[in-house]
Amino acid sequence: MISYNSLFNFTFEVFSKMGCNNADAELATKVLLKADVRGVDSHGIARLSGYVRLWEAGRINTKPNIKVIREKYATATVDGDAGLGLVVAPKAMEVAIEKTHHHACGWVSVQNSNHFGIAGYHAMMALEHDMIGFAMTNASPLVAPTFSVDRMLGTNPIAVAIPAKEQPAFVADFATTTAANGKLEILQRKNLEAPLGWIQDKDGIHTKDSHALKSGGSLLPLGGDREHSSHKGYCLGSIVDIFSAVLSGASYGPWVPPFVSFLPLPENPPGKGIGHFLGAMAIDGFREKEEFLSHMDNWINAFRNAKTVEGEERVLIPGDPEREIEHERLTVGIPLLQPVMDDLEKLGEKFNIKLD
Amino acid sequence: MISYNSLFNFTFEVFSKMGCNNADAELATKVLLKADVRGVDSHGIARLSGYVRLWEAGRINTKPNIKVIREKYATATVDGDAGLGLVVAPKAMEVAIEKTHHHACGWVSVQNSNHFGIAGYHAMMALEHDMIGFAMTNASPLVAPTFSVDRMLGTNPIAVAIPAKEQPAFVADFATTTAANGKLEILQRKNLEAPLGWIQDKDGIHTKDSHALKSGGSLLPLGGDREHSSHKGYCLGSIVDIFSAVLSGASYGPWVPPFVSFLPLPENPPGKGIGHFLGAMAIDGFREKEEFLSHMDNWINAFRNAKTVEGEERVLIPGDPEREIEHERLTVGIPLLQPVMDDLEKLGEKFNIKLD
Repeated sequence: MISYNSLFNFTFEVFSKMGCNNADAELATKVLLKADVRGVDSHGIARLSGYVRLWEAGRINTKPNIKVIREKYATATVDGDAGLGLVVAPKAMEVAIEKTHHHACGWVSVQNSNHFGIAGYHAMMALEHDMIGFAMTNASPLVAPTFSVDRMLGTNPIAVAIPAKEQPAFVADFATTTAANGKLEILQRKNLEAPLGWIQDKDGIHTKDSHALKSGGSLLPLGGDREHSSHKGYCLGSIVDIFSAVLSGASYGPWVPPFVSFLPLPENPPGKGIGHFLGAMAIDGFREKEEFLSHMDNWINAFRNAKTVEGEERVLIPGDPEREIEHERLTVGIPLLQPVMDDLEKLGEKFNIKLD
Repeated sequence: MISYNSLFNFTFEVFSKMGCNNADAELATKVLLKADVRGVDSHGIARLSGYVRLWEAGRINTKPNIKVIREKYATATVDGDAGLGLVVAPKAMEVAIEKTHHHACGWVSVQNSNHFGIAGYHAMMALEHDMIGFAMTNASPLVAPTFSVDRMLGTNPIAVAIPAKEQPAFVADFATTTAANGKLEILQRKNLEAPLGWIQDKDGIHTKDSHALKSGGSLLPLGGDREHSSHKGYCLGSIVDIFSAVLSGASYGPWVPPFVSFLPLPENPPGKGIGHFLGAMAIDGFREKEEFLSHMDNWINAFRNAKTVEGEERVLIPGDPEREIEHERLTVGIPLLQPVMDDLEKLGEKFNIKLD
């Protein structure tokens, strides 16, 4: 168990040594560790060394000139200047929120960025303003469209955050695949089989082999197979890709740059870097805010009180599990796996920083 | 086989006899039959008698005063005045498109409406303006959240239409369940079993019994079970419900009014009628339009040319199957099942209209 504060100080120092100014290092740390405190262990501190390697490979610019390159009323496009997605995305979300103050909604497509941590962080920024928040991003291709063996899409997550009154906010944040890659990685580490419907092998045959991605296999879109509507997951992943990248001028589909530094960048990319799509909507553009918030409480209560299947404890509201873990981890501390601890130790040596 | 024109004339007459003015009858007919020509047989002419029965039960107002009851810059709320969703939704979508001309996007939440046909129709209205279109609606509760046995959500579809240049538009239009209710109805009629993962019985046990909904069972959210991420389908259906109804002041969750006239209206509904959420975004709010359209062609080509799983003919782009059926049915005619023909005959007798 490591306390949030210890991890925060360490991570802040790493980003600082990479060349981030104080404000950016603080923001990147906050965004990155939000994954760890919310229990999305694959997207947090475990990836810190990956960001460092990408920076060493010259693929991350820690002194980016992030700017709006086009805007029209409620919409804008932001160039992230190859910065950390952890910094680019929240700054673009600020633009969306600012626009919402003036136009009742705001939508920002982002080009030339990098991995942005958990989508939920950015969507939840809207909650502080009693707005509805949206965040999505494309990602390195690991997912085959229905009927295909080619990896054409990333796990392309969607997050939507909706405020309530007495109840905690509704926060959906999910990959558009049957299983997030992080879940698969856990099985790989333990050498366990994956459920059928998560992955296919290089020939498109569904497999339980959790290592199938290493030999040309793919993750499957939400739904799993055609009979269970994998084409819907394929639609969702495609929409995220198009809004994040075709709209912004980022790279899309099979050309999205890989998160790992040992894989080469795709040749002749049709755009710049990874793309995101961020947005916000003002409640009172549609309805009196207090009225909406009360009805959200009513909605949440109705679903929370729905009858459970025998053996299940309760019906969850999107965001419940993450919020509960967040409360626990901020109090008790954050558990880290040994490989992650080893990674941090090496980073500490590289940058002469101590984790304590 | 019946020609589109014959069906059009018949349906137009039915809506006219129900009291719609000419413009509304024409619009409702166009929207309703779009389902038949695009191969979504469950949502088209097969439902005409259902609309008539709801009208007879006093639940549909064929002379509605559809109006914007609130608006703020790019957002608005429309009251459908209990009109046909087939008329209310395209009119609300016109508001979204008009707003997009002025604010680069437009979002309209709709209360007090009824079933709006296929979501794709409304989203595709944006294509004529080279805009991206969105449409979603809540619907009568048939779907149980993950871990629950209670029907709390409808099949709550999402449609997104994105224009391209030489390529036909990308049109996603799908229920947020593993299987649309229409597909289940086909199995019921033929007394066939459903694949596991589509439905559960009244105790929440997955079943192949395609009639399980008649004895307290439910449709399952996209994903099917927790292991295959049914919570993501539950998130999607919830988002549609909240945007369509909590935002507009329509009824939501278990209180959404049933489409069939023989079921009573829920007591103490928290809102008015069914809700929709419609939207549009201008391409050039983000990027030069021609540039975007060319990249959409490139995106579509890349996915169309992805390698197929052996035995599969091709990788589809969302909208391909419906467009191909549309071309065929407008040329050759629309096949109708005998029960639907019988239904139309009875309607013809009731209103003294001939189908020829």
